[in-house]
Amino acid sequence: MEIVEVGPRDGLQNEKNVLPASVKIAYVERAVAAGLRRIEVAAFARPDRVPQMADAEEVLRGVPRDTGVRYAALVLNGRGLDRALALGESRPDEINYVVVATDEFSRRNQGMSTAGSLAAFRSVACRARDAGFFVTLTVAAAFGCPFTGVVSASRVRDIVAEAGPLDEICLADTIGVGVPVQVTELAAAVRSVEPAAPLRAHFHNTRNTGYANAVAAVGAGFVALDASLGGIGGCPFAPAATGNIATEDLAYLLNRSALETGVDVTVAAATGTWIGERLGLAAVPAQLGRAGDFLAASGTAS
Amino acid sequence: MEIVEVGPRDGLQNEKNVLPASVKIAYVERAVAAGLRRIEVAAFARPDRVPQMADAEEVLRGVPRDTGVRYAALVLNGRGLDRALALGESRPDEINYVVVATDEFSRRNQGMSTAGSLAAFRSVACRARDAGFFVTLTVAAAFGCPFTGVVSASRVRDIVAEAGPLDEICLADTIGVGVPVQVTELAAAVRSVEPAAPLRAHFHNTRNTGYANAVAAVGAGFVALDASLGGIGGCPFAPAATGNIATEDLAYLLNRSALETGVDVTVAAATGTWIGERLGLAAVPAQLGRAGDFLAASGTAS
Repeated sequence: MEIVEVGPRDGLQNEKNVLPASVKIAYVERAVAAGLRRIEVAAFARPDRVPQMADAEEVLRGVPRDTGVRYAALVLNGRGLDRALALGESRPDEINYVVVATDEFSRRNQGMSTAGSLAAFRSVACRARDAGFFVTLTVAAAFGCPFTGVVSASRVRDIVAEAGPLDEICLADTIGVGVPVQVTELAAAVRSVEPAAPLRAHFHNTRNTGYANAVAAVGAGFVALDASLGGIGGCPFAPAATGNIATEDLAYLLNRSALETGVDVTVAAATGTWIGERLGLAAVPAQLGRAGDFLAASGTAS
Repeated sequence: MEIVEVGPRDGLQNEKNVLPASVKIAYVERAVAAGLRRIEVAAFARPDRVPQMADAEEVLRGVPRDTGVRYAALVLNGRGLDRALALGESRPDEINYVVVATDEFSRRNQGMSTAGSLAAFRSVACRARDAGFFVTLTVAAAFGCPFTGVVSASRVRDIVAEAGPLDEICLADTIGVGVPVQVTELAAAVRSVEPAAPLRAHFHNTRNTGYANAVAAVGAGFVALDASLGGIGGCPFAPAATGNIATEDLAYLLNRSALETGVDVTVAAATGTWIGERLGLAAVPAQLGRAGDFLAASGTAS
């Protein structure tokens, strides 16, 4: 099972404490050392809107290459794609674009309707694919909207049907309201219109359903799961939300379920604690750094 | 799906801040108001060993009756059963006895081997059943032991096979190390020797696997799940452990999965916050009190 490390982007994005690029690069280096091989490291957003991502270019120039790691960056529009392309050899391997599932949330977040955002995506995606990027479309708020409530599976299906060609579909529970049965329903709905595209899921643990949803996603055939070291990250539209599901806790669960992730949970947990300290957090949402890896602690081999 | 509220017993048991019986009774009253109909309210233990449970009789005399609620109490031995019987009309409806799955943990916890504890259980259970109590056997550390590591499903199976007649089997992840595949394996192992007894599960969220395990338990045919309002409770043998899975968060997950629990998540979440304040906790592990019930907040009917 593939874990996509999103801490350097989604984890940090809404943290008020803006970290220097050197710390972000060290965070990525530690993620690589923990065994992560796919990392979302930056967003090409307006620096005045997302100050934490203002140094996207510097981060992408500084992360380790030739390690077999694929780097992803969030792109909001054509200008963001221009910035990614301008990086030349330091450009990301993957482009991720977000469409918000409801018009109300989409307007507040992106200043346009879902349909408008989808139209923009098709244009960006076409250029990105021509330029050789792997292109992911994330459907945000696919499990529920903070303004309009439950999102139907048919709504998500229709969005995906309108997306045009893409390399991967990511269904995101942006505000952490989803439950496992929705994971299964949404997977079936998306597959009814896009049977071939690999599915990736993005869960927040806001109401303690994130890890149960991750297990449901494995069962529903998703091949990749987003997570952040330390479980950092929040959503400005869900102020009390805790962060993404934590990479170390997810890896503990999957590794012990015969779904090897390649992630060393001990190194990952230490990195989760480390990034929490860099951010000045009293504690990170991840539990493994406090509880310890059961097998390592008990000295049992299997 | 039935949620067994264990906050007044397992949730409080290891809290250093000993609450007066009046607060414990108020806790139970609030649990009843939240819709819980099966509540573990006390342990008949030695007051010098478990000071928080010293007022077991006073609590059992004070909790509301004639509300359709069944009360359970933990009994450690024949003397504990004598105390339960001496309560007369205020006695609990159910007796719960714990056998620890590994000899090492059992000796440290109960001063005897697993086999010795099982022998004691058979004697207590026989008397308890004759006296009309519903009898549950909990196999503690069924998912792993802090001293000897992984516990095999065959070990748990053999313990259940030796238990003699009982009304329910509860499999407990006492130190919070379990993963969903173990839930399924253990259910099959136990059913191979006790096909008829209802299964109940007890999870701690120490490594963020508790809610995923609960969903797996539903899938494996367990009919009851332990949880504590606020998610309070720890284990003295797992010092960094967080508590039981939280009643409000579990009810949110199950209610939204068409597995109606009868629990009002808003009332439950308020009670979780309330008991945390009584205990002087900065925050409870439950998330719903902070995040809010998605459906109530968004005003969507379904």
